[in-house]
Amino acid sequence: MRAVDLIRKKRDSGEHTREEIDFLISNYTQGVIPDYQMASWLMASWLRGLSHAETAALTEAMLHSGEVLDFSSIPGKKVDKHSTGGVGDNASLILAPIVAAGGLTVPMISGRGLGHTGGTLDKLESIPGFNVNLSLDKFRSVLRECGMGLIGQTAEIAPADKKIYALRDATGTVENVGLICASIMSKKLAEGIDVLVLDVKTGSGAFLKDPAVSRFLAALMVDTGERSGTRTAALLTSMDQPLGRFAGNWVEIWESVELLGNRRHPLSEDARELSLVLAGWMIYLGDKAGSAEEGRDLAEARLTDGSGLRIFRQIVEAQGGDVRVLDDPGGFHTPKFRREFLAGRSGYLNRVDCEQVGWAVQRLGAGREHAFDAVAAHAGLEMHVKLGGRVEAGQPMCTMFTDEEARFAEPEQLLSAALTIGDEPETAPALIGEVITREESAGILRNHFQESPLHP
Amino acid sequence: MRAVDLIRKKRDSGEHTREEIDFLISNYTQGVIPDYQMASWLMASWLRGLSHAETAALTEAMLHSGEVLDFSSIPGKKVDKHSTGGVGDNASLILAPIVAAGGLTVPMISGRGLGHTGGTLDKLESIPGFNVNLSLDKFRSVLRECGMGLIGQTAEIAPADKKIYALRDATGTVENVGLICASIMSKKLAEGIDVLVLDVKTGSGAFLKDPAVSRFLAALMVDTGERSGTRTAALLTSMDQPLGRFAGNWVEIWESVELLGNRRHPLSEDARELSLVLAGWMIYLGDKAGSAEEGRDLAEARLTDGSGLRIFRQIVEAQGGDVRVLDDPGGFHTPKFRREFLAGRSGYLNRVDCEQVGWAVQRLGAGREHAFDAVAAHAGLEMHVKLGGRVEAGQPMCTMFTDEEARFAEPEQLLSAALTIGDEPETAPALIGEVITREESAGILRNHFQESPLHP
Repeated sequence: MRAVDLIRKKRDSGEHTREEIDFLISNYTQGVIPDYQMASWLMASWLRGLSHAETAALTEAMLHSGEVLDFSSIPGKKVDKHSTGGVGDNASLILAPIVAAGGLTVPMISGRGLGHTGGTLDKLESIPGFNVNLSLDKFRSVLRECGMGLIGQTAEIAPADKKIYALRDATGTVENVGLICASIMSKKLAEGIDVLVLDVKTGSGAFLKDPAVSRFLAALMVDTGERSGTRTAALLTSMDQPLGRFAGNWVEIWESVELLGNRRHPLSEDARELSLVLAGWMIYLGDKAGSAEEGRDLAEARLTDGSGLRIFRQIVEAQGGDVRVLDDPGGFHTPKFRREFLAGRSGYLNRVDCEQVGWAVQRLGAGREHAFDAVAAHAGLEMHVKLGGRVEAGQPMCTMFTDEEARFAEPEQLLSAALTIGDEPETAPALIGEVITREESAGILRNHFQESPLHP
Repeated sequence: MRAVDLIRKKRDSGEHTREEIDFLISNYTQGVIPDYQMASWLMASWLRGLSHAETAALTEAMLHSGEVLDFSSIPGKKVDKHSTGGVGDNASLILAPIVAAGGLTVPMISGRGLGHTGGTLDKLESIPGFNVNLSLDKFRSVLRECGMGLIGQTAEIAPADKKIYALRDATGTVENVGLICASIMSKKLAEGIDVLVLDVKTGSGAFLKDPAVSRFLAALMVDTGERSGTRTAALLTSMDQPLGRFAGNWVEIWESVELLGNRRHPLSEDARELSLVLAGWMIYLGDKAGSAEEGRDLAEARLTDGSGLRIFRQIVEAQGGDVRVLDDPGGFHTPKFRREFLAGRSGYLNRVDCEQVGWAVQRLGAGREHAFDAVAAHAGLEMHVKLGGRVEAGQPMCTMFTDEEARFAEPEQLLSAALTIGDEPETAPALIGEVITREESAGILRNHFQESPLHP
């Protein structure tokens, strides 16, 4: 088998066998196939598309390019949640301790901020001392002790994905459903989990803007998970505005602690609801409830009785974080500069270009411009109004936080363009849309692949 | 400007500006843009296509990536011929001395065998001592002295093409009309010539099998040449069977010497005719005749009066070759093994898969399997019958020559499948088809690019 023949096959709209995909991925991971051949194959796949079987084979080949974790020594079901990336999305921080309090184990392997979206690891590191780089042995003992753990991707997990992801970023081959599915699912399935709930973002803040494409990706990931024996469901949720009241690093920890502590806020209600619904699906698929609704009720009970917050404090302590900052999270919020962004006119906030708001948050210092930049713990944004809400000319629509005053200019421009005020209030998109389980995914995929066997 | 943005633009069917093409080519040649980004861009261009303007910009950027030769110190017009690659095609060797004898200068920069096709350099090196690696200074003095010179591509000429060609070979991006045009024309225009005649092969032995694609490539190259001030014409010629009596290395020198020495052979008539017609176009466009027909007559006169052979002997001597072997070229043909390939039945040779015959020639030892292999000077094939000719069962259709007896097996199999005998004689395709000059090229390109502005 020669790489160039496989490239030509895909270029000419051919469908690879499982052996061909294995050949490509294992030889690329080992450095036998050079970057330029993989780059050419990726572009051919981007433009010609991957079939259902190719996507499954690719996911498995990437999954088995490294270690598959084994948590069988820890009793009970292992469950995790993955989001395709959002703005102000702190649901992981709220739901993980609740689900752990519900009797399941949550071995959560998270990422850093990417593009306009935030990353759970960056948020956690705003807690002084919090260590996301645990050894696998330490991770196991934290899981056994707390029922959850929060770490970053290790070198052992899916090394093929790490290599291919970096290459896709540089070669214009990121936004392809088959490649995205293989990247996400190879990492997640390597966690050795029993249940996976996927939060697939739609709307102006999502990476994939076309709802039909998001729905197809959701179905493809659910199918891939289920085929490998992991109970999987995907929720299509609105990323048409930042989730909750805050977007940034520490501010999102703050909001999570408020919610876990039963201190509700009108602007945090969507974050609370999304967290509970996702937790409900995790609890249901983890066999601790008879339905997702029952799971949601159980999750809410674990939130209101304070057991979620107790586990959150426990995990912060177990991973080396300073729990004292959790006692007065608002008091710990100490950005060097704050500036309000004012409404230019009176009316209703009718449209948010949420991706641009995400870029504003990153440019305030919450995100990186280059891979090895540090992020600012207290940079971020507080929203004072949600979609459909009333604003008055000259009143603050949001407050920006940063440690460098010069950083206000670009976010101010971005926000001016991103927030659209109208005369009449419009209805915001529903927070939670379709839920795709094993049953729904089969029909969606059948229709898609019948129309075009290779899906670009 | 960032390479990844240009890749995404082409991926999304965008059309590059001249500045964007210059950025890609100059940064790639200098090693700033890595192979993997160029590979991704090449695949996107292969699949999405290049526009007329993009192809022109690409050719110019590659042409100016290195030195453009300047032969202005040598009086008279500089003319060259380029073939897209054939089997048994020794026309260069016959026409170059004839055209030089006609008062023009022929600074011919040739290539080596590629795939199933032969290469002029490999053929020349079958002459003991012949040196194709002259310095540019030596090349100039040979040109001044003999009116012609025969060398290989130097490191100074179109380095971008050298780098991109190697990458295309490894990344499945060879057969694209725009990329082929830019590769051929950047090298040829860097020779600083006034006239270029292109022999664009069609039929079973051509790289491009689709006649419409060959015709389009011919028009694109003519247009590109004319735009840069070089008088250019392209002849579409049949490569439906090996040209002439022989295919290989020394055997083609032998045949050229026979023809230049006025020793005609029924099986060499097509090689003679093609050489004279191509020479006629070179002489006409070089302003030494009033028409291509008049040019052909002049070329034939320079052949029959022996001045072509005189110049051929002169150039062999000037480039270090042993002229004594030219006195008895048949006697110098000393392959270690000869074997006849016999007709399995009686009838008429009605079809030749000329590409497979070309592979048979290469496998006998005339070509390479890896870039740095040596080729065998006396390996090759003699045809005993042409398309439409009568064969008798058990009589030889061709004779194979090789230095290693084990090499007969594969060519025998290839020839069995490649030569089709029928009951009734069929008419062979015309040797010389359409001629495309500046006038014809404009119409062909207009139609093509009107239909699809980006031509894949």
